[in-house]
Amino acid sequence: MTGKNQIGNQLKAAGTIKFRTFNPKLNTENDCIFTEASDGEINQALSLAQDAFGEFRAMSGERKGAFLDAIADEILALDDELIQVYMNESGLPEGRAKGERGRTIFQLRAFANLVCEGSWLEARIDTAVPDRTPIPKSDLRKMKIGIGPIVVFGASNFPLAYSTAGGDTASALAAGCPVIVKSHPMHAGTSELVARAVIKAAEKTGMPNGVFSNLNSRGIEVGTELVKHPIVKGVGFTGSIRGGRALFNLAAKRKEPIPVFAEMGSVNPVILMPEYLQNNTESIAKTYAGSITLGTGQFCTNPGLILGVKSDALSSFIEALGNEITEIDPMCMLHPTIATNFENGKIKLLEQKGIKLVNHSIKSSDPNHAQQGIATVDGGAFLLNSNLHEEVFGPFSLVVQCEDLDQLTHIIEELDGQLTGTILTENSELAANPALIRAMQDRVGRLIFNSVPTGVEVCPSMSHGGPYPASTDARFTAVGTDSIQRWVRPVSYQDWPNELLPDELKNENPLAISRKVNNADTRDAIS
Amino acid sequence: MTGKNQIGNQLKAAGTIKFRTFNPKLNTENDCIFTEASDGEINQALSLAQDAFGEFRAMSGERKGAFLDAIADEILALDDELIQVYMNESGLPEGRAKGERGRTIFQLRAFANLVCEGSWLEARIDTAVPDRTPIPKSDLRKMKIGIGPIVVFGASNFPLAYSTAGGDTASALAAGCPVIVKSHPMHAGTSELVARAVIKAAEKTGMPNGVFSNLNSRGIEVGTELVKHPIVKGVGFTGSIRGGRALFNLAAKRKEPIPVFAEMGSVNPVILMPEYLQNNTESIAKTYAGSITLGTGQFCTNPGLILGVKSDALSSFIEALGNEITEIDPMCMLHPTIATNFENGKIKLLEQKGIKLVNHSIKSSDPNHAQQGIATVDGGAFLLNSNLHEEVFGPFSLVVQCEDLDQLTHIIEELDGQLTGTILTENSELAANPALIRAMQDRVGRLIFNSVPTGVEVCPSMSHGGPYPASTDARFTAVGTDSIQRWVRPVSYQDWPNELLPDELKNENPLAISRKVNNADTRDAIS
Repeated sequence: MTGKNQIGNQLKAAGTIKFRTFNPKLNTENDCIFTEASDGEINQALSLAQDAFGEFRAMSGERKGAFLDAIADEILALDDELIQVYMNESGLPEGRAKGERGRTIFQLRAFANLVCEGSWLEARIDTAVPDRTPIPKSDLRKMKIGIGPIVVFGASNFPLAYSTAGGDTASALAAGCPVIVKSHPMHAGTSELVARAVIKAAEKTGMPNGVFSNLNSRGIEVGTELVKHPIVKGVGFTGSIRGGRALFNLAAKRKEPIPVFAEMGSVNPVILMPEYLQNNTESIAKTYAGSITLGTGQFCTNPGLILGVKSDALSSFIEALGNEITEIDPMCMLHPTIATNFENGKIKLLEQKGIKLVNHSIKSSDPNHAQQGIATVDGGAFLLNSNLHEEVFGPFSLVVQCEDLDQLTHIIEELDGQLTGTILTENSELAANPALIRAMQDRVGRLIFNSVPTGVEVCPSMSHGGPYPASTDARFTAVGTDSIQRWVRPVSYQDWPNELLPDELKNENPLAISRKVNNADTRDAIS
Repeated sequence: MTGKNQIGNQLKAAGTIKFRTFNPKLNTENDCIFTEASDGEINQALSLAQDAFGEFRAMSGERKGAFLDAIADEILALDDELIQVYMNESGLPEGRAKGERGRTIFQLRAFANLVCEGSWLEARIDTAVPDRTPIPKSDLRKMKIGIGPIVVFGASNFPLAYSTAGGDTASALAAGCPVIVKSHPMHAGTSELVARAVIKAAEKTGMPNGVFSNLNSRGIEVGTELVKHPIVKGVGFTGSIRGGRALFNLAAKRKEPIPVFAEMGSVNPVILMPEYLQNNTESIAKTYAGSITLGTGQFCTNPGLILGVKSDALSSFIEALGNEITEIDPMCMLHPTIATNFENGKIKLLEQKGIKLVNHSIKSSDPNHAQQGIATVDGGAFLLNSNLHEEVFGPFSLVVQCEDLDQLTHIIEELDGQLTGTILTENSELAANPALIRAMQDRVGRLIFNSVPTGVEVCPSMSHGGPYPASTDARFTAVGTDSIQRWVRPVSYQDWPNELLPDELKNENPLAISRKVNNADTRDAIS
């Protein structure tokens, strides 16, 4: 580990700002000293990215796929060194580190397959109609192309899967966009190792220098400079509403505004329908105690808000959930700052009118361990106080006791946008309450039936995003193969000579991709 | 004609601000007095739209398609009354009025077909894998749904096709989004008639009240209020960079930012490659004189910038183009303000260093007629002065005489984003200059070979948009069936009971739409 910035294929450290990462389990700083990227290094990285863009974008899906596959191989080759640094910088256990690495590899390979397969190009061809009246119709062919260099912000809570070579990076590279990572200061070492793997892969597969860079930063300055830079054409971010909105505002004020895909806060409401709750009180409590504390509650899909209708069953559930959550051993949070914010968030919430603490675990003597807990409040008090609608990032949930399903529906309507909404219900209860389903659907990106919101599949049918402030642009998913659509734009070729068209649009269809030709989906050549 | 606002299915005029439209050919105001929408009427229209949204969005494609088809029928039923009012309010000739009506009808029917056919839903299904290790895989199904009420701004230069029931409205309604039109003050009467047709169609096909409203406005206040309103979830606009950017900025500052699709200025560069120019000097001059003056130069794809390499052929072309353009009879502009802006724009351009007027038509004695013209400048002077890169809205083009193809390529690289880029070239010249093609592709949404940029086909392969400032979001087209994607977002259903899924995602595939099931495109049911 060098602590240097990866500027294209060179390691550099001309800057004067130095920092270290922190081991929350040992409550000490890690050894390596990182150097924040200097202005000159930021400019070099962007200039290299700009130079690389033309060549990289024009590469075939097969070559880009080989690059993505090679990144996956090189990350695996880092082996134990990566797992160890990941654990030292996050306080997360080995199983989680390996699981997240597996997901990262899976994502890279999924995008490698996607770019070879070609459906993401949305190729459309309408052939000429020379004898159309009153005027002839031209030949028109359209496909998606990458928009330009993309800045990816590493996420504190996913040092691998949502960071250096995570979903944003994999999808942007797949789209033919060079990537500049602003690594998260909490896991700069993990980022350096992964960046090394990406550069090795780039060199082995003959990618142009500048297709990838990794910049260290201690504070907000490097990220701010990147988002304002004219070479940058898009931004991927996973984190707090405050951080994501600040980047969105910066990007919107540019001379040329650029899209910012910020996946931000969410309380992920869970609705307990009366009959289902009655029939499954204990098992729901057990399952949700697990979901609330998974990854020390540091998942964006953490169920922070549970809503039910006042009843004996709901009272029993609340008691059971409080008990179950104290049965789970307290776990380490990612960083002392996050642990402190969690404690302060709980204190602030518990001071609000009408809030009652149900139960919480004993305070661990280990450093930075979260004291997980459950609180409850009446529906009426919840509606009156929007402070209660906000996320407490960590293993903590609020159970809202509603007067009836009408009040519950009204609460859903009053919530901000959410990544997910879960309903625990008998089929008959679901069928009988269309207004409730409609209200949920209006607020969320993913509706879940009788399960937990934690766990985000990487597949074509995933929607990870939702109305603001769950994300800054609900029209795109941040997870799954469709996330590539964030980084592309359509371009049409009118009456272009066949031999000079991109292969994707040639009559012969040499790549054998699926195309919409005169309104019909086909892989056939055009005769 | 009443001059009133269409607030859902009621006509209202509670406001105090009155105005008339203008007949630029007669140089007089038209008779009807319009009343600007009051704050109360704006709120009523939005509140009705919000109420209508849930029911409307959930309607089948067949029902929405019937509504769109009925709008087309009702617009045709307006017959001569519509054509007359259109001509009185725009100064455009009957042929153009009928052509634009035809295009509007075609757009409505294209979206009617699209919503029945269902490919726009991008339905994706990944079935469960209960025995997957380490954890089972859930059943996940995704489709696109409308985002909510949309505000459409009528465009000054297309009273029908880009206005009240134009492409933005047709695509938003197709997506299941209620539409509130802020009609353009220059053609409030045309808008009232079309709005009446939409409301008749809505009533005949049983659409909820509030699915459509049409608001009069004299200035910017109504539009500003609409864009800031929390009920509004998206905006469509065609017009100036100043206007579009102002709306974009308003939307970006909202608590919940919303997308603004502003299709704005463009000079639509045309490159004359040396050999092709040599072989076709006279015919290019003739064709382009026609393209530059089409619709009195008031098309967003008007070719405002023509670039060639200094040569005898280029000199001959410039002279010929100057002559050809004076052979065409001067035509009326849309409004005295636009005619004045055109004159002022030309004067400002001709004052710039190095600019030479080639030729212009004689000043017509008819009111508001444009004095069309051609100017020229050296490549070096053009590069030094960004004032020369700006659009003069009207029948006027600047021919840039470059030192060589390197300078020409460099000029393309320095241009702002554009809707279109045209290359007039022999195939061999095109093949020999990949850097030039790449530079053009980076700046435009549509590349055109040996033709003119004017004329925008409505079809799946059209990309009408481009890097900023051609549009505020280059990732979407404003014309063609894919423009529906501006108004939708994905929603996923996880483990949802089959009988309670939307028809689009049910196992049986009752709508027989094309879906991606476990990564394969199919119309089959899931067994």
